[in-house]
Amino acid sequence: MELLNDEFYMRLALNAAAGAAGQTGINPMVGCVVVNDGRIVGIGAHLKRGEGHAEVHALNMAGDNARGAAAYVTLEPCSHHGRTPPCSDRLIREGVKRVVVAAMDPNPAVAGRGLEKLRAAGIDVEVGLLGEQSRKLNEAFNKYIVTGIPFVTIKTALTLDGRIATKTGSSKWITGPAAREAVHTLRHRHNAIMVGVGTVLADDPELTTRLSVPGLHPVRVVVDSMLRIPDHARVLNGEARTIVLTTAQAQAARIEAVQAAGAEVIVCGDGPRVDLRAALEELGKREIGSVLVEGGGVLNGSLLKAGLVDKLMLFYAPKLVGGAAPSGFEFDGPEAMSGALQLENVTIERYGGDWCVTGYPAAGREG
Amino acid sequence: MELLNDEFYMRLALNAAAGAAGQTGINPMVGCVVVNDGRIVGIGAHLKRGEGHAEVHALNMAGDNARGAAAYVTLEPCSHHGRTPPCSDRLIREGVKRVVVAAMDPNPAVAGRGLEKLRAAGIDVEVGLLGEQSRKLNEAFNKYIVTGIPFVTIKTALTLDGRIATKTGSSKWITGPAAREAVHTLRHRHNAIMVGVGTVLADDPELTTRLSVPGLHPVRVVVDSMLRIPDHARVLNGEARTIVLTTAQAQAARIEAVQAAGAEVIVCGDGPRVDLRAALEELGKREIGSVLVEGGGVLNGSLLKAGLVDKLMLFYAPKLVGGAAPSGFEFDGPEAMSGALQLENVTIERYGGDWCVTGYPAAGREG
Repeated sequence: MELLNDEFYMRLALNAAAGAAGQTGINPMVGCVVVNDGRIVGIGAHLKRGEGHAEVHALNMAGDNARGAAAYVTLEPCSHHGRTPPCSDRLIREGVKRVVVAAMDPNPAVAGRGLEKLRAAGIDVEVGLLGEQSRKLNEAFNKYIVTGIPFVTIKTALTLDGRIATKTGSSKWITGPAAREAVHTLRHRHNAIMVGVGTVLADDPELTTRLSVPGLHPVRVVVDSMLRIPDHARVLNGEARTIVLTTAQAQAARIEAVQAAGAEVIVCGDGPRVDLRAALEELGKREIGSVLVEGGGVLNGSLLKAGLVDKLMLFYAPKLVGGAAPSGFEFDGPEAMSGALQLENVTIERYGGDWCVTGYPAAGREG
Repeated sequence: MELLNDEFYMRLALNAAAGAAGQTGINPMVGCVVVNDGRIVGIGAHLKRGEGHAEVHALNMAGDNARGAAAYVTLEPCSHHGRTPPCSDRLIREGVKRVVVAAMDPNPAVAGRGLEKLRAAGIDVEVGLLGEQSRKLNEAFNKYIVTGIPFVTIKTALTLDGRIATKTGSSKWITGPAAREAVHTLRHRHNAIMVGVGTVLADDPELTTRLSVPGLHPVRVVVDSMLRIPDHARVLNGEARTIVLTTAQAQAARIEAVQAAGAEVIVCGDGPRVDLRAALEELGKREIGSVLVEGGGVLNGSLLKAGLVDKLMLFYAPKLVGGAAPSGFEFDGPEAMSGALQLENVTIERYGGDWCVTGYPAAGREG
């Protein structure tokens, strides 16, 4: 039984926040629960960038019941005029008596000022309840808002021997329907999805979000140093926005053709390979705060080797295809086992007959 | 809370049986709990081949309290004079009123006759309670007693990209202490441990059981088609029995030298590689009912390809070493992903920062 206490209300706020994963753009997920005289009087979540913050929705629902209430907010209320007025002002104006905050806002425009304002107005402020959960929920935002570089997650489906296809290149399907549904859920929850042009040439994927309910399509990003992408590739259809990353070695005529097919082309470095760090910076400038990489072993390996990967989600199917098949991670590895690229904070979740190993590359161990 | 019912007593009997894993040789693990008038009056387990069966130990403990009692036995009581007298006779003689059996004995010398005897004596007999658990506990026995071929389990430590070493061959250590302790526990629980001579040449392992408590050493089996094993290899030390499997291509002088070093040499086929099916038959004849394979990718791949593997226990560490490193499964794999070697009944257990994926090759899918 879940006991009724501060944690219960904060968990409810976190659940409301997490529900909006994928629909807040580069904004964080935030939830708010307002409680007065033993009952919940308002629940809110930030649902869309440029629209109301969680506190505003919850306070609107609470109406006059906000006076003297406690507000549970998963992220420090903002103190600045952004696209909406500051939430800390609104909490003060409504007469809220106590504010419980899960995590501080790493956004340099907030970073403690929200809480200062509340305290200066005589509100009882507590910070840190379920803070770890709140920070985890906004791991992408927390990186992007400080660095301008999107949070990069490698997703790949693998056999037990670490392969992403058989020796002939056959790869349909490694994992089953439940794992594939999880992947489409991940697409909904990311601002962009990235593949190498090899994947486009081999599989001609659409790279849209297809679920039992309508989902949001991420921006489709193709890494294509020589612009080998065919004009009729499905990833260039109008279903979603597409960005093609290339190099100065691409022919101008090809750039024009790809643009005419509806994609934005960004030149990242002189080649022969796309400068992946510069590419991520360019994506960040275009308000892409999270990238799901669904590339092959070469793109995965290059990103890992360059230390550009924040998270890995590896979906394993219980099957073996033998040693001559392509690996999910093509990179020039370490000499000694002690130099292996190590993952931290590993969790394992089952999806039907398959399972997902999630982990974060340990700092300072880049192959 | 565990409720007091038939299942409770049978689970207790299964626990007692499982405790003796590794110490019953080719005999099954069996447990027995005798209950009379609302209390347990006897608990027994088969502890050593040639010594008392579970029922005998439990009935000895019960003494006069066995009269009118219920006996929970994890495996059908034997009906034949083997190394000990039949347990069904003893149950009848002690006046047991009810016998609950988890699983039938697949041993052709028993196979139902034990239960017939009990029923003929007017004892109330029930079969099947926790039968699946009992069969799983004796999965090795169940194969060996019917086929004469040992149950083969591949154990290997792998990186997330399916590698057993770095590109230079560095492999110490992939997994951490908890996983390694699990492996030594597996050694205690198997009749034999098998490696290729490549492992002996590379690592010079002792292949004994080293735990925080004393364990039993399995027979050490080295697959060595040309007898390249050095006379001073640690696996030839006197700590445990050693068998070297070779071919007719091995030099007679080498055979004599290896024998002089203390090992038994078995010639399995004309070469150039050891006939693994014949080798397992030879091991079976020597009362080896279970083999833990701790070989490299080539031995693993050969056994898999030949359809000789009953179970895989794959210990994964959360690390990546890149595409040029040796695989845990070197075999000529399928063309299509649908032809992959599929594992069934997969379970995942965590050991410290690592985890073990256990599965059984699906029938009729041999690479």
